[in-house]
Amino acid sequence: MTPAPTKVVRWDATARRFDPAKMQKVGLFETPRFFLDLYCLEAGQQQKAHAHAESDKVYLVVEGEGAFRVGEETVRLGVGEGVLAAPGEVHGIENDSGERLVVLTFMSPPPS
Amino acid sequence: MTPAPTKVVRWDATARRFDPAKMQKVGLFETPRFFLDLYCLEAGQQQKAHAHAESDKVYLVVEGEGAFRVGEETVRLGVGEGVLAAPGEVHGIENDSGERLVVLTFMSPPPS
Repeated sequence: MTPAPTKVVRWDATARRFDPAKMQKVGLFETPRFFLDLYCLEAGQQQKAHAHAESDKVYLVVEGEGAFRVGEETVRLGVGEGVLAAPGEVHGIENDSGERLVVLTFMSPPPS
Repeated sequence: MTPAPTKVVRWDATARRFDPAKMQKVGLFETPRFFLDLYCLEAGQQQKAHAHAESDKVYLVVEGEGAFRVGEETVRLGVGEGVLAAPGEVHGIENDSGERLVVLTFMSPPPS
């Protein structure tokens, strides 16, 4: 049997995709255990606050800055910072900066 | 009950830790579902090839470049690139560059 090709992805500028209509999700990896996406938000765009009963979600900022809600708190995060939303914690993103915001997003387990 | 403080981490230069003796692992998050570490390799250091029967592992390069083995393949990855090792696939890192290498490393589920 031929081995499956190695799963290499890019999450740099060439991988990013923006849409004036809404935040874009670029899928990088997905398995039964997790997904990894690149969330791309134009200035003013958001991911509406929501919660997952069973999953952790991690946001890691790779470009720009924005307001991240986790539970009852909202924190401002920039490049090189990240935050964890535990199962059941409400979380969301508001790109209230004047620039683009790009976020590596892990979720484990992925939605079923 | 006071809400738990929001779990914010840094994975920028301030979070990195190097040791001439061996690769350093800086823990960022750990839950029953995953861990996220920052692996910091001086020039010439490595993470020896190994496998996990049940877990996915993702390497994302955030500084420098190096050789990443996944299964029977070895790929060169630089900043903005990443690779997935599926359960059972041998994987490891060789920093064969002349510079430091920093890798966000996600594993799901974490070792039991």
